[in-house]
Amino acid sequence: MTHPDDLLPVGLEDALPARAAAITRALREILGAMDAHGYDRVRPPLVEFEHSLAGRMEGVATRRMVRFTDPESLRTLALRSDMTVQVGRIAATSLREAPRPLRLCYAGEVATIKADQLDPARQRLQLGAELVGSDSVAAAAEAVAVALDALDAAGVTGLSVDLTMPDLVDTLSEEALPLAPEQREAVRRELDMKDAAGLKAAGGEAYLPLIYAAGPFEQALDKLSALDAGGVLASRTSALREVAATLGDRVRLTLDPSERHGFGYQSWFGFTLHADNARGALGRGGTYAIKGSEEAATGFSLYMEPILEALGALATDMRKAVFLPLDHDRAAARRFRSDGWRTVAAVTGDEDPQALGCTHSLRGGEATPL
Amino acid sequence: MTHPDDLLPVGLEDALPARAAAITRALREILGAMDAHGYDRVRPPLVEFEHSLAGRMEGVATRRMVRFTDPESLRTLALRSDMTVQVGRIAATSLREAPRPLRLCYAGEVATIKADQLDPARQRLQLGAELVGSDSVAAAAEAVAVALDALDAAGVTGLSVDLTMPDLVDTLSEEALPLAPEQREAVRRELDMKDAAGLKAAGGEAYLPLIYAAGPFEQALDKLSALDAGGVLASRTSALREVAATLGDRVRLTLDPSERHGFGYQSWFGFTLHADNARGALGRGGTYAIKGSEEAATGFSLYMEPILEALGALATDMRKAVFLPLDHDRAAARRFRSDGWRTVAAVTGDEDPQALGCTHSLRGGEATPL
Repeated sequence: MTHPDDLLPVGLEDALPARAAAITRALREILGAMDAHGYDRVRPPLVEFEHSLAGRMEGVATRRMVRFTDPESLRTLALRSDMTVQVGRIAATSLREAPRPLRLCYAGEVATIKADQLDPARQRLQLGAELVGSDSVAAAAEAVAVALDALDAAGVTGLSVDLTMPDLVDTLSEEALPLAPEQREAVRRELDMKDAAGLKAAGGEAYLPLIYAAGPFEQALDKLSALDAGGVLASRTSALREVAATLGDRVRLTLDPSERHGFGYQSWFGFTLHADNARGALGRGGTYAIKGSEEAATGFSLYMEPILEALGALATDMRKAVFLPLDHDRAAARRFRSDGWRTVAAVTGDEDPQALGCTHSLRGGEATPL
Repeated sequence: MTHPDDLLPVGLEDALPARAAAITRALREILGAMDAHGYDRVRPPLVEFEHSLAGRMEGVATRRMVRFTDPESLRTLALRSDMTVQVGRIAATSLREAPRPLRLCYAGEVATIKADQLDPARQRLQLGAELVGSDSVAAAAEAVAVALDALDAAGVTGLSVDLTMPDLVDTLSEEALPLAPEQREAVRRELDMKDAAGLKAAGGEAYLPLIYAAGPFEQALDKLSALDAGGVLASRTSALREVAATLGDRVRLTLDPSERHGFGYQSWFGFTLHADNARGALGRGGTYAIKGSEEAATGFSLYMEPILEALGALATDMRKAVFLPLDHDRAAARRFRSDGWRTVAAVTGDEDPQALGCTHSLRGGEATPL
């Protein structure tokens, strides 16, 4: 009998044992990879001042946050919808004096009051790593490498990386392909939509070739360089080549220079991670400036949901588990646990050991197969 | 220059690297101990219908929850303030058909909009294990044993367990020491406060000896048995003796039969965990019935804050870390990481390796001590 109270609100879910175990495994591997690259984990709180969450980065939509009035300060608090901004705050405040580059990583739940159009989830498990104090080519290459190592460690296969140049229109429109300031946003939007007619209508006809300069990295970069008559992109394209060179052939690499979705706040470099088995992106990253402190930073975020999708079917736990009858030998049980076994003790006396997942039963201090 | 937006609201804090690492270590050890005893982790969402969070267990104060209107359902949602109720919901719904006893564990952030008087924190990291389907003596003994194993694994020393009998007044007042139904609550409250005058004023003079039947387990239980003229407590006291017998002398054991603080919803058995170095309790547990389904259950919750306090000074990470100059040998760096080293790569070229926590630097494929 299902009572309405038994249901969960739309977009909010329980992870039951098999899924929760898969999350724990992936989380540990990913955090382990970040840690191996020198990233220290921080744990910011679930709730902050709305203004603080919104004020540290462009593109954080307070409208979609869970907000409420703090009875203590009478200010508006919000549930975090993105942990990157919290790491930026920590770098700019508590860890302001820590040596640079400062490497921090994080993993935690983020929530919004309303889902976006493509995905009904209102809570996500976000993981990420941020290098604060540099947006150099080496920093950009490190971000991609750490993200790939983290996903490799979690067991994700069939990875591809799509590079992008978030400030491309700003750079080109200053000299090479001039645009009035009021035209820029429309041109960026139409490029992002890859809408040739819209681009012309927005006065961005000169940007049309950018729509077609997307694809496998080398080809796309050649097309882009061909467009760059004045050479204003030369430093950008050579930086991208350097990043690509550090990746070698470990991953499929594409370039979509005018892709902008999800890169509202990034500067010269952005990247999106995909895997064969996941429909959506596994994560995104790039270079940016921490709003407020204006310190350069480079990092990425991953999301658990598409990572689990990329991993495919949940592994079943084939672990040895020994059933302990009532009045069992406690010292023997302890020995099994310290040898890595799981023990499942009787508490009623009428348990079915196999239904409880046991492979063995304790008899006379020994584990007898069931 | 500290901007007001840089501050966190009262009762909400960042865990910076040393503390976050201590939390991660303790969390893994505690969850590992629960897992070894057969408890499967579940991950319920941060937010649920207020009614669902409040409806599964007595003693959950919705007044202190962060609540807001769901734009989808137009019902009231709340941020969880206690994960036990979520595990109860899972046991009664998604895992209703799973074999009993069902062992589930959890770890996650819980929050309240207002702190309580004794502790300014508005967010806590709660961990716990619940055995659903039994409140037997063996289940009660298991709850205490798993909690102690978990705290041992985390490195907590100087543990003590205080047992209590949450429904003692209900049991005694039915026959042995009769009370009018309207007197019971007052008698319970005055006993909990250990207020002899208040107890007399509330008409509970016959209960006075209970105030003094608290202390080291054997002595307190003898006093309690002496009071039990009619023998209505005989099954309870022998059950407590059985629980105590399973613990042997691994821990200091006390009994405070009329202690009620934090046991609003428990039935025959409750316990509180203390450690020498922590002022507050590390956690509590006991037997109860899941509200709604009325299924018997036994479990406990721990809180990270007092556990860290009990652990004392944060361990500093003495791990070997090798600095990787610009254009280092990437394959060598990878080898160090897979051997358990941390690598810290140059991204600007003017880093100070020692300031970044490095113990070695990579030269010619070898780690040279700094």
